[in-house]
Amino acid sequence: MRIVGIRRPNPGSDVEVAVLSDQGDRVTVVASLVDFWADPEGCLSRPPAGPTLATTAVEQVPPVLPDARVLCIGLNYLQHVAEGSYRDQELPPYPTLFARWTQSLTVDGAEVPVPSDEDGLDWEGEVVAWVGAPLVDASPEEALAAVVGYSVFNDLTSRRAQKLTSQWTLGKNGDRSGPLGPIVPASEIGDLSQGLRLQTRVNGETMQDARTDQMIYSVGETLSLISRTLTLRPGDLLATGTPAGVGYSRKPPRLLQPGDTVEVEVERLGVVRNHVVRNEQRLTAAVAAQKARV
Amino acid sequence: MRIVGIRRPNPGSDVEVAVLSDQGDRVTVVASLVDFWADPEGCLSRPPAGPTLATTAVEQVPPVLPDARVLCIGLNYLQHVAEGSYRDQELPPYPTLFARWTQSLTVDGAEVPVPSDEDGLDWEGEVVAWVGAPLVDASPEEALAAVVGYSVFNDLTSRRAQKLTSQWTLGKNGDRSGPLGPIVPASEIGDLSQGLRLQTRVNGETMQDARTDQMIYSVGETLSLISRTLTLRPGDLLATGTPAGVGYSRKPPRLLQPGDTVEVEVERLGVVRNHVVRNEQRLTAAVAAQKARV
Repeated sequence: MRIVGIRRPNPGSDVEVAVLSDQGDRVTVVASLVDFWADPEGCLSRPPAGPTLATTAVEQVPPVLPDARVLCIGLNYLQHVAEGSYRDQELPPYPTLFARWTQSLTVDGAEVPVPSDEDGLDWEGEVVAWVGAPLVDASPEEALAAVVGYSVFNDLTSRRAQKLTSQWTLGKNGDRSGPLGPIVPASEIGDLSQGLRLQTRVNGETMQDARTDQMIYSVGETLSLISRTLTLRPGDLLATGTPAGVGYSRKPPRLLQPGDTVEVEVERLGVVRNHVVRNEQRLTAAVAAQKARV
Repeated sequence: MRIVGIRRPNPGSDVEVAVLSDQGDRVTVVASLVDFWADPEGCLSRPPAGPTLATTAVEQVPPVLPDARVLCIGLNYLQHVAEGSYRDQELPPYPTLFARWTQSLTVDGAEVPVPSDEDGLDWEGEVVAWVGAPLVDASPEEALAAVVGYSVFNDLTSRRAQKLTSQWTLGKNGDRSGPLGPIVPASEIGDLSQGLRLQTRVNGETMQDARTDQMIYSVGETLSLISRTLTLRPGDLLATGTPAGVGYSRKPPRLLQPGDTVEVEVERLGVVRNHVVRNEQRLTAAVAAQKARV
Protein backbone atom coordinates (compact mmCIF):
# COMPACT_ATOMS: atom_id res chain seq x y z
CA MET A 1 0.00 0.00 0.00
CA ARG A 2 1.27 3.45 -0.92
CA ILE A 3 -0.04 6.51 0.92
CA VAL A 4 0.17 9.95 -0.69
CA GLY A 5 -0.98 13.49 -0.01
CA ILE A 6 -3.40 15.09 -2.46
CA ARG A 7 -5.08 18.40 -2.99
CA ARG A 8 -8.31 18.50 -5.01
CA PRO A 9 -8.60 21.28 -7.58
CA ASN A 10 -11.24 23.32 -5.67
CA PRO A 11 -9.74 26.66 -4.56
CA GLY A 12 -8.52 26.65 -0.96
CA SER A 13 -9.04 22.91 -0.53
CA ASP A 14 -7.09 21.25 2.27
CA VAL A 15 -4.58 18.45 1.88
CA GLU A 16 -6.01 14.94 2.18
CA VAL A 17 -4.33 11.58 2.62
CA ALA A 18 -5.11 8.89 0.03
CA VAL A 19 -4.14 5.40 -1.09
CA LEU A 20 -2.45 5.29 -4.50
CA SER A 21 -3.61 2.46 -6.78
CA ASP A 22 -1.11 -0.19 -7.91
CA GLN A 23 -1.05 1.29 -11.42
CA GLY A 24 -0.70 4.79 -9.99
CA ASP A 25 -3.64 6.09 -11.99
CA ARG A 26 -6.15 6.48 -9.14
CA VAL A 27 -6.24 7.64 -5.52
CA THR A 28 -8.81 6.72 -2.86
CA VAL A 29 -9.21 9.28 -0.08
CA VAL A 30 -8.49 8.01 3.46
CA ALA A 31 -8.92 11.11 5.63
CA SER A 32 -8.00 14.77 5.96
CA LEU A 33 -4.35 15.34 6.73
CA VAL A 34 -5.10 16.29 10.34
CA ASP A 35 -7.43 13.32 10.90
CA PHE A 36 -4.91 10.91 9.39
CA TRP A 37 -2.09 12.00 11.73
CA ALA A 38 -4.44 12.01 14.75
CA ASP A 39 -4.69 8.23 14.32
CA PRO A 40 -2.42 6.90 11.57
CA GLU A 41 -2.51 3.26 12.72
CA GLY A 42 -6.31 3.32 12.81
CA CYS A 43 -6.58 4.97 9.39
CA LEU A 44 -4.23 2.37 7.86
CA SER A 45 -6.10 -0.57 9.41
CA ARG A 46 -9.47 0.28 7.82
CA PRO A 47 -10.34 0.20 4.11
CA PRO A 48 -10.35 3.78 2.80
CA ALA A 49 -13.89 5.16 2.85
CA GLY A 50 -13.47 8.28 0.72
CA PRO A 51 -14.04 8.81 -3.00
CA THR A 52 -11.75 7.40 -5.72
CA LEU A 53 -10.34 10.01 -8.12
CA ALA A 54 -8.10 9.96 -11.15
CA THR A 55 -4.51 10.87 -10.27
CA THR A 56 -4.61 13.37 -13.11
CA ALA A 57 -7.50 15.20 -11.39
CA VAL A 58 -5.56 15.99 -8.19
CA GLU A 59 -2.29 17.61 -7.23
CA GLN A 60 0.10 15.33 -5.35
CA VAL A 61 1.73 16.91 -2.30
CA PRO A 62 3.72 15.46 0.61
CA PRO A 63 1.33 13.92 3.20
CA VAL A 64 3.07 15.99 5.84
CA LEU A 65 1.67 18.23 8.57
CA PRO A 66 2.84 21.84 8.07
CA ASP A 67 4.39 21.91 11.55
CA ALA A 68 5.99 18.46 11.37
CA ARG A 69 9.68 18.30 12.17
CA VAL A 70 11.97 16.76 9.56
CA LEU A 71 14.95 15.48 11.54
CA CYS A 72 17.84 14.31 9.38
CA ILE A 73 20.91 12.25 10.24
CA GLY A 74 24.05 13.64 8.62
CA LEU A 75 26.61 10.87 9.04
CA ASN A 76 25.04 7.43 9.23
CA TYR A 77 26.96 5.19 6.79
CA LEU A 78 30.68 4.60 7.45
CA GLN A 79 31.64 4.75 3.78
CA HIS A 80 29.88 8.12 3.41
CA VAL A 81 31.70 9.46 6.47
CA ALA A 82 34.96 8.27 4.88
CA GLU A 83 34.34 10.13 1.60
CA GLY A 84 33.26 13.49 3.07
CA SER A 85 34.57 16.59 4.87
CA TYR A 86 34.37 14.88 8.27
CA ARG A 87 36.66 11.95 7.31
CA ASP A 88 39.59 13.21 9.42
CA GLN A 89 37.49 13.69 12.54
CA GLU A 90 36.53 11.10 15.10
CA LEU A 91 33.11 9.59 14.44
CA PRO A 92 30.70 11.36 16.79
CA PRO A 93 29.27 9.02 19.45
CA TYR A 94 25.73 10.18 18.64
CA PRO A 95 23.81 10.68 15.40
CA THR A 96 24.52 14.09 13.88
CA LEU A 97 21.08 15.66 13.51
CA PHE A 98 20.15 18.60 11.32
CA ALA A 99 16.83 20.18 10.40
CA ARG A 100 14.69 20.56 7.36
CA TRP A 101 11.55 22.62 7.36
CA THR A 102 8.50 21.09 5.70
CA GLN A 103 8.49 23.94 3.17
CA SER A 104 11.53 22.29 1.53
CA LEU A 105 9.63 19.05 0.82
CA THR A 106 8.14 18.08 -2.51
CA VAL A 107 7.07 14.95 -4.39
CA ASP A 108 8.09 12.49 -7.09
CA GLY A 109 8.18 14.26 -10.45
CA ALA A 110 8.69 17.79 -9.12
CA GLU A 111 11.19 20.12 -10.77
CA VAL A 112 13.97 21.16 -8.40
CA PRO A 113 15.81 24.45 -8.98
CA VAL A 114 19.56 24.96 -8.51
CA PRO A 115 19.76 28.01 -6.20
CA SER A 116 21.85 31.13 -6.91
CA ASP A 117 25.57 30.81 -6.15
CA GLU A 118 25.53 26.99 -6.39
CA ASP A 119 27.48 25.06 -9.02
CA GLY A 120 24.71 22.47 -9.01
CA LEU A 121 22.79 20.30 -6.54
CA ASP A 122 24.16 17.19 -4.86
CA TRP A 123 22.11 14.02 -4.46
CA GLU A 124 21.63 12.11 -1.20
CA GLY A 125 19.40 9.05 -1.53
CA GLU A 126 17.80 8.14 1.80
CA VAL A 127 14.96 6.39 3.60
CA VAL A 128 12.59 8.42 5.78
CA ALA A 129 10.81 6.93 8.81
CA TRP A 130 7.45 8.43 9.83
CA VAL A 131 6.62 8.76 13.53
CA GLY A 132 3.08 7.54 14.29
CA ALA A 133 2.69 8.12 18.04
CA PRO A 134 3.87 10.65 20.65
CA LEU A 135 7.32 9.84 22.07
CA VAL A 136 8.66 11.33 25.33
CA ASP A 137 11.79 9.75 26.85
CA ALA A 138 11.04 6.59 24.85
CA SER A 139 13.27 3.51 24.77
CA PRO A 140 14.68 2.46 21.36
CA GLU A 141 12.14 -0.38 21.29
CA GLU A 142 9.18 1.91 22.05
CA ALA A 143 10.43 4.39 19.46
CA LEU A 144 10.78 1.77 16.72
CA ALA A 145 7.32 0.42 17.51
CA ALA A 146 5.92 3.94 16.96
CA VAL A 147 7.19 4.10 13.35
CA VAL A 148 4.14 3.87 11.12
CA GLY A 149 5.83 3.78 7.72
CA TYR A 150 8.80 4.49 5.49
CA SER A 151 9.39 6.51 2.31
CA VAL A 152 12.09 7.05 -0.29
CA PHE A 153 13.73 10.48 0.07
CA ASN A 154 16.26 12.55 -1.82
CA ASP A 155 18.02 15.03 0.49
CA LEU A 156 19.12 17.31 -2.37
CA THR A 157 21.83 19.58 -1.05
CA SER A 158 23.18 23.04 -1.89
CA ARG A 159 26.79 22.22 -0.94
CA ARG A 160 28.13 25.76 -1.06
CA ALA A 161 25.42 27.09 1.27
CA GLN A 162 25.82 24.00 3.48
CA LYS A 163 29.52 24.67 4.00
CA LEU A 164 29.48 28.46 4.45
CA THR A 165 29.66 27.96 8.24
CA SER A 166 29.67 25.13 10.79
CA GLN A 167 25.89 24.69 10.53
CA TRP A 168 24.38 22.93 7.52
CA THR A 169 20.84 24.34 7.76
CA LEU A 170 20.80 26.76 4.84
CA GLY A 171 22.17 24.29 2.30
CA LYS A 172 19.64 21.67 3.36
CA ASN A 173 16.54 23.78 2.81
CA GLY A 174 16.59 24.95 -0.80
CA ASP A 175 13.23 25.33 -2.52
CA ARG A 176 11.67 21.94 -3.40
CA SER A 177 14.96 20.24 -2.48
CA GLY A 178 13.39 17.37 -0.54
CA PRO A 179 11.39 15.03 -2.81
CA LEU A 180 9.59 12.41 -0.77
CA GLY A 181 7.94 9.21 -2.01
CA PRO A 182 4.66 7.68 -0.82
CA ILE A 183 4.44 6.24 2.70
CA VAL A 184 4.66 2.44 2.74
CA PRO A 185 3.25 1.07 6.03
CA ALA A 186 5.81 -0.40 8.44
CA SER A 187 3.50 -3.42 8.75
CA GLU A 188 4.40 -4.30 5.13
CA ILE A 189 8.11 -3.54 5.34
CA GLY A 190 9.32 -4.56 8.77
CA ASP A 191 12.26 -2.40 9.78
CA LEU A 192 15.40 -1.24 8.01
CA SER A 193 17.77 -3.66 9.77
CA GLN A 194 16.85 -6.31 7.20
CA GLY A 195 18.85 -4.30 4.63
CA LEU A 196 16.73 -2.71 1.91
CA ARG A 197 18.80 -1.92 -1.16
CA LEU A 198 19.09 1.81 -1.93
CA GLN A 199 20.28 3.15 -5.28
CA THR A 200 20.65 6.65 -6.67
CA ARG A 201 20.93 7.19 -10.42
CA VAL A 202 21.75 10.34 -12.40
CA ASN A 203 20.55 10.24 -16.01
CA GLY A 204 20.44 6.46 -15.59
CA GLU A 205 23.99 6.08 -14.22
CA THR A 206 24.23 4.50 -10.75
CA MET A 207 25.88 6.80 -8.19
CA GLN A 208 24.90 5.25 -4.85
CA ASP A 209 24.25 1.56 -4.15
CA ALA A 210 24.01 0.40 -0.54
CA ARG A 211 21.81 -1.41 1.96
CA THR A 212 19.98 0.07 4.93
CA ASP A 213 21.50 -2.47 7.33
CA GLN A 214 24.80 -0.58 6.92
CA MET A 215 23.46 2.31 9.03
CA ILE A 216 25.49 3.23 12.10
CA TYR A 217 22.52 4.44 14.17
CA SER A 218 19.19 2.66 13.96
CA VAL A 219 15.83 4.41 13.66
CA GLY A 220 14.82 3.26 17.15
CA GLU A 221 18.04 4.46 18.80
CA THR A 222 17.90 7.83 17.07
CA LEU A 223 14.24 8.54 17.81
CA SER A 224 14.84 7.47 21.41
CA LEU A 225 17.70 9.99 21.74
CA ILE A 226 15.63 12.78 20.16
CA SER A 227 12.67 12.08 22.46
CA ARG A 228 14.82 12.90 25.49
CA THR A 229 15.03 16.54 24.37
CA LEU A 230 11.89 17.15 22.33
CA THR A 231 8.55 15.39 22.33
CA LEU A 232 8.06 13.65 18.99
CA ARG A 233 4.55 13.82 17.58
CA PRO A 234 2.67 11.79 14.96
CA GLY A 235 3.69 13.05 11.54
CA ASP A 236 7.28 13.95 12.46
CA LEU A 237 9.89 12.48 10.09
CA LEU A 238 13.37 11.05 10.45
CA ALA A 239 15.61 11.03 7.36
CA THR A 240 18.08 8.26 8.08
CA GLY A 241 21.17 9.51 6.23
CA THR A 242 22.80 8.82 2.88
CA PRO A 243 25.36 6.15 1.93
CA ALA A 244 28.59 6.70 -0.02
CA GLY A 245 28.61 8.02 -3.56
CA VAL A 246 27.48 11.64 -3.29
CA GLY A 247 28.62 14.05 -5.98
CA TYR A 248 30.95 16.50 -4.25
CA SER A 249 33.36 13.82 -3.07
CA ARG A 250 33.68 12.08 -6.47
CA LYS A 251 36.86 12.55 -8.46
CA PRO A 252 36.25 14.78 -10.33
CA PRO A 253 33.30 16.20 -8.35
CA ARG A 254 29.94 16.04 -10.08
CA LEU A 255 26.81 18.00 -9.27
CA LEU A 256 23.33 17.96 -10.81
CA GLN A 257 22.81 20.54 -13.55
CA PRO A 258 19.60 21.94 -15.06
CA GLY A 259 18.33 19.26 -17.44
CA ASP A 260 19.58 16.33 -15.32
CA THR A 261 17.25 13.64 -13.97
CA VAL A 262 17.96 12.12 -10.57
CA GLU A 263 16.20 9.08 -9.15
CA VAL A 264 16.38 7.31 -5.81
CA GLU A 265 15.10 3.75 -5.64
CA VAL A 266 14.68 1.74 -2.47
CA GLU A 267 13.69 -1.91 -2.50
CA ARG A 268 10.00 -2.28 -1.61
CA LEU A 269 9.57 1.49 -1.16
CA GLY A 270 9.70 2.57 -4.81
CA VAL A 271 11.34 5.31 -6.85
CA VAL A 272 11.44 9.10 -6.58
CA ARG A 273 12.46 10.76 -9.85
CA ASN A 274 13.05 14.49 -10.25
CA HIS A 275 14.26 16.92 -12.88
CA VAL A 276 16.68 19.71 -12.12
CA VAL A 277 15.88 23.19 -13.43
CA ARG A 278 17.44 26.66 -13.40
CA ASN A 279 17.32 29.14 -10.52
CA GLU A 280 14.98 31.43 -12.49
CA GLN A 281 12.11 29.04 -11.71
CA ARG A 282 12.32 30.05 -8.04
CA LEU A 283 11.04 33.54 -8.83
CA THR A 284 8.20 32.27 -11.02
CA ALA A 285 7.14 29.81 -8.30
CA ALA A 286 7.24 32.44 -5.55
CA VAL A 287 5.01 34.79 -7.51
CA ALA A 288 2.53 31.98 -8.27
CA ALA A 289 2.46 30.85 -4.61
CA GLN A 290 1.81 34.35 -3.36
CA LYS A 291 -1.06 34.78 -5.86
CA ALA A 292 -2.60 31.47 -4.74
CA ARG A 293 -2.37 32.52 -1.11
CA VAL A 294 -4.13 35.90 -1.45
CA MET B 1 0.96 48.40 18.82
CA ARG B 2 1.47 44.81 19.99
CA ILE B 3 0.26 41.92 17.82
CA VAL B 4 -0.39 38.52 19.38
CA GLY B 5 -1.80 35.15 18.39
CA ILE B 6 -4.94 33.93 20.13
CA ARG B 7 -7.13 30.87 20.16
CA ARG B 8 -10.74 31.24 21.31
CA PRO B 9 -12.01 28.53 23.68
CA ASN B 10 -14.35 26.86 21.14
CA PRO B 11 -13.10 23.33 20.36
CA GLY B 12 -11.02 23.14 17.19
CA SER B 13 -10.92 26.90 16.72
CA ASP B 14 -8.14 28.25 14.52
CA VAL B 15 -5.45 30.68 15.56
CA GLU B 16 -6.28 34.35 14.98
CA VAL B 17 -4.11 37.44 15.04
CA ALA B 18 -5.15 40.25 17.39
CA VAL B 19 -4.03 43.61 18.79
CA LEU B 20 -3.23 43.54 22.50
CA SER B 21 -4.52 46.55 24.47
CA ASP B 22 -2.04 48.85 26.23
CA GLN B 23 -3.03 47.42 29.61
CA GLY B 24 -2.82 43.88 28.25
CA ASP B 25 -6.33 43.03 29.46
CA ARG B 26 -8.09 42.92 26.06
CA VAL B 27 -7.43 41.73 22.51
CA THR B 28 -9.12 42.95 19.32
CA VAL B 29 -9.17 40.43 16.48
CA VAL B 30 -7.43 41.54 13.26
CA ALA B 31 -7.71 38.48 10.99
CA SER B 32 -7.25 34.74 10.84
CA LEU B 33 -3.62 33.66 10.98
CA VAL B 34 -3.58 32.78 7.27
CA ASP B 35 -5.28 36.02 6.20
CA PHE B 36 -2.90 38.08 8.33
CA TRP B 37 0.22 36.60 6.74
CA ALA B 38 -1.28 36.84 3.25
CA ASP B 39 -1.14 40.64 3.65
CA PRO B 40 0.55 41.69 6.91
CA GLU B 41 1.22 45.30 5.82
CA GLY B 42 -2.41 45.74 4.80
CA CYS B 43 -3.73 44.21 8.03
CA LEU B 44 -1.51 46.50 10.13
CA SER B 45 -2.52 49.63 8.22
CA ARG B 46 -6.26 49.25 8.92
CA PRO B 47 -7.99 49.51 12.31
CA PRO B 48 -8.81 45.97 13.52
CA ALA B 49 -12.39 45.08 12.55
CA GLY B 50 -12.92 41.97 14.69
CA PRO B 51 -14.45 41.59 18.15
CA THR B 52 -12.72 42.70 21.36
CA LEU B 53 -12.31 39.98 23.98
CA ALA B 54 -10.90 39.77 27.48
CA THR B 55 -7.36 38.36 27.48
CA THR B 56 -8.48 35.95 30.18
CA ALA B 57 -11.08 34.49 27.77
CA VAL B 58 -8.55 33.40 25.13
CA GLU B 59 -5.38 31.33 24.96
CA GLN B 60 -2.32 33.26 23.79
CA VAL B 61 -0.20 31.43 21.20
CA PRO B 62 2.61 32.57 18.90
CA PRO B 63 1.16 34.38 15.82
CA VAL B 64 3.20 32.05 13.66
CA LEU B 65 2.22 29.97 10.62
CA PRO B 66 2.74 26.24 11.33
CA ASP B 67 5.07 25.91 8.34
CA ALA B 68 7.02 29.11 8.98
CA ARG B 69 10.78 28.76 9.12
CA VAL B 70 12.55 30.03 12.23
CA LEU B 71 16.06 30.87 11.07
CA CYS B 72 18.45 31.68 13.89
CA ILE B 73 21.89 33.30 13.83
CA GLY B 74 24.32 31.52 16.14
CA LEU B 75 27.26 33.91 16.43
CA ASN B 76 26.26 37.54 15.90
CA TYR B 77 27.80 39.51 18.76
CA LEU B 78 31.61 39.60 19.06
CA GLN B 79 31.61 39.39 22.85
CA HIS B 80 29.38 36.30 22.71
CA VAL B 81 31.70 34.67 20.18
CA ALA B 82 34.61 35.45 22.53
CA GLU B 83 32.96 33.73 25.53
CA GLY B 84 31.82 30.55 23.77
CA SER B 85 33.11 27.26 22.32
CA TYR B 86 33.98 28.90 18.99
CA ARG B 87 36.32 31.52 20.53
CA ASP B 88 39.49 29.86 19.19
CA GLN B 89 38.18 29.58 15.63
CA GLU B 90 38.23 32.24 12.97
CA LEU B 91 35.00 34.22 12.81
CA PRO B 92 33.02 32.74 9.89
CA PRO B 93 32.62 35.21 7.01
CA TYR B 94 28.87 34.54 6.91
CA PRO B 95 26.15 34.38 9.57
CA THR B 96 26.01 30.92 11.17
CA LEU B 97 22.40 29.83 10.66
CA PHE B 98 20.58 27.09 12.51
CA ALA B 99 16.96 25.98 12.55
CA ARG B 100 14.11 25.93 14.97
CA TRP B 101 10.81 24.32 14.16
CA THR B 102 7.68 26.29 15.03
CA GLN B 103 6.68 23.50 17.44
CA SER B 104 9.42 24.74 19.81
CA LEU B 105 7.84 28.22 20.09
CA THR B 106 5.73 29.44 22.96
CA VAL B 107 4.64 32.71 24.56
CA ASP B 108 5.28 35.06 27.48
CA GLY B 109 4.31 33.36 30.73
CA ALA B 110 4.66 29.76 29.51
CA GLU B 111 6.36 27.15 31.67
CA VAL B 112 9.48 25.70 30.04
CA PRO B 113 10.65 22.20 31.01
CA VAL B 114 14.30 21.18 31.46
CA PRO B 115 14.65 18.09 29.22
CA SER B 116 16.05 14.75 30.37
CA ASP B 117 19.85 14.55 30.54
CA GLU B 118 20.27 18.33 30.84
CA ASP B 119 21.75 20.03 33.91
CA GLY B 120 19.44 22.97 33.26
CA LEU B 121 18.50 25.34 30.44
CA ASP B 122 20.64 28.22 29.20
CA TRP B 123 19.21 31.64 28.37
CA GLU B 124 19.80 33.54 25.12
CA GLY B 125 17.99 36.87 24.95
CA GLU B 126 17.39 37.93 21.34
CA VAL B 127 15.34 40.01 18.93
CA VAL B 128 13.34 38.28 16.20
CA ALA B 129 12.56 39.93 12.84
CA TRP B 130 9.38 38.89 10.99
CA VAL B 131 9.46 38.61 7.20
CA GLY B 132 6.40 40.26 5.62
CA ALA B 133 6.89 39.69 1.88
CA PRO B 134 8.32 36.98 -0.41
CA LEU B 135 12.08 37.29 -0.93
CA VAL B 136 13.97 35.59 -3.77
CA ASP B 137 17.56 36.70 -4.46
CA ALA B 138 16.78 39.97 -2.66
CA SER B 139 19.30 42.73 -1.97
CA PRO B 140 19.96 43.64 1.70
CA GLU B 141 17.88 46.80 1.20
CA GLU B 142 14.93 44.90 -0.30
CA ALA B 143 15.15 42.33 2.48
CA LEU B 144 15.18 44.92 5.26
CA ALA B 145 12.21 46.71 3.66
CA ALA B 146 10.26 43.43 3.80
CA VAL B 147 10.57 43.15 7.60
CA VAL B 148 7.13 43.82 9.01
CA GLY B 149 7.92 43.74 12.73
CA TYR B 150 10.14 42.68 15.62
CA SER B 151 9.66 40.66 18.80
CA VAL B 152 11.54 39.80 21.96
CA PHE B 153 12.74 36.18 21.97
CA ASN B 154 14.43 33.82 24.38
CA ASP B 155 16.36 31.10 22.54
CA LEU B 156 16.40 28.72 25.54
CA THR B 157 19.02 26.09 24.88
CA SER B 158 19.65 22.50 25.97
CA ARG B 159 23.45 22.81 25.95
CA ARG B 160 24.23 19.12 26.34
CA ALA B 161 22.03 18.14 23.39
CA GLN B 162 23.37 21.11 21.39
CA LYS B 163 26.96 19.94 21.78
CA LEU B 164 26.54 16.17 21.26
CA THR B 165 27.71 16.57 17.65
CA SER B 166 28.72 19.34 15.23
CA GLN B 167 25.09 20.29 14.56
CA TRP B 168 23.13 22.30 17.15
CA THR B 169 19.60 21.37 16.02
CA LEU B 170 18.52 19.02 18.80
CA GLY B 171 19.56 21.33 21.65
CA LYS B 172 17.73 24.25 20.04
CA ASN B 173 14.34 22.58 19.78
CA GLY B 174 13.34 21.47 23.26
CA ASP B 175 9.64 21.57 24.08
CA ARG B 176 8.40 25.16 24.63
CA SER B 177 12.00 26.39 24.56
CA GLY B 178 11.35 29.41 22.35
CA PRO B 179 9.18 32.02 24.11
CA LEU B 180 8.30 34.83 21.74
CA GLY B 181 6.84 38.24 22.59
CA PRO B 182 4.19 40.18 20.65
CA ILE B 183 5.04 41.58 17.21
CA VAL B 184 5.76 45.32 17.28
CA PRO B 185 5.40 46.79 13.78
CA ALA B 186 8.65 47.88 12.09
CA SER B 187 6.90 51.18 11.26
CA GLU B 188 7.00 52.00 15.00
CA ILE B 189 10.52 50.73 15.70
CA GLY B 190 12.66 51.53 12.70
CA ASP B 191 15.45 48.97 12.39
CA LEU B 192 17.87 47.43 14.87
CA SER B 193 20.91 49.46 13.79
CA GLN B 194 19.73 52.28 16.10
CA GLY B 195 20.74 50.05 19.03
CA LEU B 196 17.84 48.83 21.14
CA ARG B 197 18.95 47.82 24.63
CA LEU B 198 18.54 44.09 25.36
CA GLN B 199 18.69 42.66 28.90
CA THR B 200 18.23 39.16 30.26
CA ARG B 201 17.52 38.65 33.96
CA VAL B 202 17.39 35.45 36.02
CA ASN B 203 15.36 35.77 39.22
CA GLY B 204 15.86 39.53 38.85
CA GLU B 205 19.66 39.41 38.41
CA THR B 206 20.96 40.89 35.14
CA MET B 207 22.85 38.35 33.02
CA GLN B 208 22.95 39.96 29.56
CA ASP B 209 22.99 43.68 28.78
CA ALA B 210 23.81 44.80 25.25
CA ARG B 211 22.56 46.84 22.32
CA THR B 212 21.33 45.57 18.97
CA ASP B 213 23.73 47.87 17.05
CA GLN B 214 26.55 45.53 18.22
CA MET B 215 25.38 42.82 15.81
CA ILE B 216 27.96 41.59 13.30
CA TYR B 217 25.45 40.74 10.56
CA SER B 218 22.44 42.97 9.98
CA VAL B 219 18.91 41.68 9.42
CA GLY B 220 18.93 42.90 5.80
CA GLU B 221 22.29 41.25 4.97
CA THR B 222 21.28 37.95 6.56
CA LEU B 223 17.85 37.73 4.93
CA SER B 224 19.46 38.64 1.60
CA LEU B 225 21.93 35.76 1.95
CA ILE B 226 19.18 33.31 2.92
CA SER B 227 17.01 34.36 -0.02
CA ARG B 228 19.71 33.21 -2.45
CA THR B 229 19.14 29.58 -1.38
CA LEU B 230 15.54 29.43 -0.18
CA THR B 231 12.58 31.64 -0.97
CA LEU B 232 11.52 33.47 2.18
CA ARG B 233 7.79 33.80 2.68
CA PRO B 234 5.61 36.11 4.78
CA GLY B 235 5.58 34.77 8.33
CA ASP B 236 9.14 33.40 8.31
CA LEU B 237 11.26 34.54 11.28
CA LEU B 238 14.88 35.49 11.81
CA ALA B 239 16.26 35.26 15.35
CA THR B 240 19.19 37.67 15.30
CA GLY B 241 21.51 36.04 17.84
CA THR B 242 22.35 36.57 21.49
CA PRO B 243 24.94 38.88 23.08
CA ALA B 244 27.50 37.94 25.76
CA GLY B 245 26.46 36.69 29.18
CA VAL B 246 24.96 33.24 28.58
CA GLY B 247 25.06 30.75 31.44
CA TYR B 248 27.40 27.99 30.28
CA SER B 249 30.38 30.30 29.77
CA ARG B 250 30.07 32.04 33.16
CA LYS B 251 32.58 31.15 35.89
CA PRO B 252 31.21 29.06 37.50
CA PRO B 253 28.69 28.03 34.83
CA ARG B 254 25.06 28.67 35.68
CA LEU B 255 21.98 27.13 34.10
CA LEU B 256 18.28 27.66 34.73
CA GLN B 257 16.76 25.22 37.22
CA PRO B 258 13.12 24.29 37.86
CA GLY B 259 11.67 27.15 39.91
CA ASP B 260 13.79 29.85 38.22
CA THR B 261 12.25 32.80 36.39
CA VAL B 262 13.97 34.17 33.29
CA GLU B 263 13.03 37.38 31.52
CA VAL B 264 14.26 39.05 28.38
CA GLU B 265 13.54 42.75 27.96
CA VAL B 266 14.20 44.75 24.81
CA GLU B 267 13.72 48.50 24.64
CA ARG B 268 10.44 49.37 22.88
CA LEU B 269 9.63 45.65 22.28
CA GLY B 270 8.71 44.64 25.84
CA VAL B 271 9.44 41.74 28.17
CA VAL B 272 9.10 37.96 27.87
CA ARG B 273 9.05 36.23 31.26
CA ASN B 274 9.01 32.45 31.73
CA HIS B 275 9.21 29.93 34.52
CA VAL B 276 11.34 26.84 34.34
CA VAL B 277 9.79 23.51 35.34
CA ARG B 278 10.83 19.87 35.65
CA ASN B 279 11.09 17.37 32.79
CA GLU B 280 8.05 15.47 34.08
CA GLN B 281 5.81 18.21 32.67
CA ARG B 282 6.79 17.10 29.14
CA LEU B 283 4.90 13.83 29.55
CA THR B 284 1.81 15.51 30.99
CA ALA B 285 1.77 18.03 28.14
CA ALA B 286 2.19 15.36 25.46
CA VAL B 287 -0.73 13.35 26.79
CA ALA B 288 -2.93 16.48 26.96
CA ALA B 289 -1.97 17.53 23.40
CA GLN B 290 -2.75 14.12 22.00
CA LYS B 291 -6.15 14.12 23.71
CA ALA B 292 -6.93 17.60 22.33
CA ARG B 293 -6.00 16.46 18.83
CA VAL B 294 -8.18 13.37 18.70
